[in-house]
Amino acid sequence: MSPPLDEFARIARFFAPLAAGFPGALNLVDDAALIACPAGRELVVTTDALVAGVHFLPDDPPETLGRKVLGVNLSDLAAKGAEPLAYTLVTALTRAEGEAWLEGFAAGLAAMQAEHGIQLAGGDSVSTPGPVMLSVTAFGTVPAGAMIGRGGARPGDGIYVTGTLGDAALGLKAIRGGITDAGGFLAGRYRCPQPRTAVGPALRGIASAMIDVSDGLVADLGHLCAVSGVGAEVEAGLLPLSAAARPHAGDLAAVLSGGDDYELLFTASDRQPPPAAIAGIPITRIGRIGGGAGVRVLDSARGLIAVPRGGWRHF
Amino acid sequence: MSPPLDEFARIARFFAPLAAGFPGALNLVDDAALIACPAGRELVVTTDALVAGVHFLPDDPPETLGRKVLGVNLSDLAAKGAEPLAYTLVTALTRAEGEAWLEGFAAGLAAMQAEHGIQLAGGDSVSTPGPVMLSVTAFGTVPAGAMIGRGGARPGDGIYVTGTLGDAALGLKAIRGGITDAGGFLAGRYRCPQPRTAVGPALRGIASAMIDVSDGLVADLGHLCAVSGVGAEVEAGLLPLSAAARPHAGDLAAVLSGGDDYELLFTASDRQPPPAAIAGIPITRIGRIGGGAGVRVLDSARGLIAVPRGGWRHF
Repeated sequence: MSPPLDEFARIARFFAPLAAGFPGALNLVDDAALIACPAGRELVVTTDALVAGVHFLPDDPPETLGRKVLGVNLSDLAAKGAEPLAYTLVTALTRAEGEAWLEGFAAGLAAMQAEHGIQLAGGDSVSTPGPVMLSVTAFGTVPAGAMIGRGGARPGDGIYVTGTLGDAALGLKAIRGGITDAGGFLAGRYRCPQPRTAVGPALRGIASAMIDVSDGLVADLGHLCAVSGVGAEVEAGLLPLSAAARPHAGDLAAVLSGGDDYELLFTASDRQPPPAAIAGIPITRIGRIGGGAGVRVLDSARGLIAVPRGGWRHF
Repeated sequence: MSPPLDEFARIARFFAPLAAGFPGALNLVDDAALIACPAGRELVVTTDALVAGVHFLPDDPPETLGRKVLGVNLSDLAAKGAEPLAYTLVTALTRAEGEAWLEGFAAGLAAMQAEHGIQLAGGDSVSTPGPVMLSVTAFGTVPAGAMIGRGGARPGDGIYVTGTLGDAALGLKAIRGGITDAGGFLAGRYRCPQPRTAVGPALRGIASAMIDVSDGLVADLGHLCAVSGVGAEVEAGLLPLSAAARPHAGDLAAVLSGGDDYELLFTASDRQPPPAAIAGIPITRIGRIGGGAGVRVLDSARGLIAVPRGGWRHF
């Protein structure tokens, strides 16, 4: 067995290739990155961290972790209507994460970089007795003044969501053996978020407020309503479900409160509604913003559905 | 005992006041920050994480941790010649860090913000079974093209350092009871880095390469030499020591290899040497860049001093 690589060798071998396309990364030999913001645009900065045993399963494959830690941050950029630009990465690893682990992790990052047009710009590597922690700070750009916030929803606006809901929560159940998952579609939705980077920027000028679904539909809609100072009514019958999730439509904990779907949830005025799909991702109207506060979920007879309590636990 | 505050209440109470002066922080109610880079300037981004039990003592007071996690990142900005602008913060805390801990931690951050003119822009709070981990991504600005990197040192350049060396390593010894530390000066140097934010930007156009002393003089000078493709000769008799460190001048492990001093180490041509002090911080010439590779430390008879081996362990 060869001796473990030191920090500089690890960076040169596994991470520098991820930064080769971004001149401001300075080949990762410096301790800082240079980011030039194009004229007329603003930088949107977001940061999200994942802790083993809290946000992911300790035995999740390293490639899916690379995809996930970058994916959740790309999703945050998409929810602001921002185009991805670059990211910095902090890894806190134990002695157990050796070269094979790093290779898989870097491959996951590389795949997401290629799919979403983002580059590594810098970072820090520290050691920890555990648990593993991964943190990304992601940079995107918007035309000055065009960022989509959480505070712009107004009474009368429609409420929309991209893609399908509940898949990730059902995927976690499937990984744990609670339900079957032929083909692994649901587990894939849990392990590998597909951030809606092509959709978010296209909603600038359309969405009055936006957030991504990471804590669960009702919780995240609640955040959006709280910042906007409005209430929301959602019709359960309108919630978009994947073919794999449809047999579990009665699992309200998954559909209403399950997180990690990383779909975009937004509001828009009826004067300028969104198209039915953007970049091949369907957009579904699921309710309406009203006065008051909080989120009400209604059944087909407009009766109030009790939302399963408690925040989504990422696992 | 009152129930623990949820994430949103914690952010509102302890962190939002730290962001009140930065409009792009959006009061921390959104999940992103907006950073507008002034015309003609570039953003310098740096990130450094601290892990309890690795980079700080688990019983360090929370106020000093707030100062330290922001201080080490301000030091990185200073080493690039950048003026501080804003930062994002990721905290991974256990159940043991309650409101009193958060209050102390936020007070430490607030003190550093006020001293160095930087503002909180955003972040993420996650829970962990432990150890506590704190990560800052700091943003500074330089005139376009003026960032000071690690790769510009040339044979013949003088080697300079700000302030004094070895204090932090001796401070760690003092905290552990190994040496006396009347007045606590050395311990303070270990616990509360004083980033040289007033010095770094003043060295633009003077320093040909710069780095901060976080891993130890010889290690960090070695990094600078490796990136610049040069070697270095340091004269041990020229190393600046504080009055408190002077009795321990023979402790070469502290003076040559002790980290956490967060002084600036830079090179400059003799055609444009730095002043003897900037903003009240003395600047001392300690050696010269040569050809070859690596760092040689010489005694007063120009004999080679064996540098204590092994990287600095932050504690």
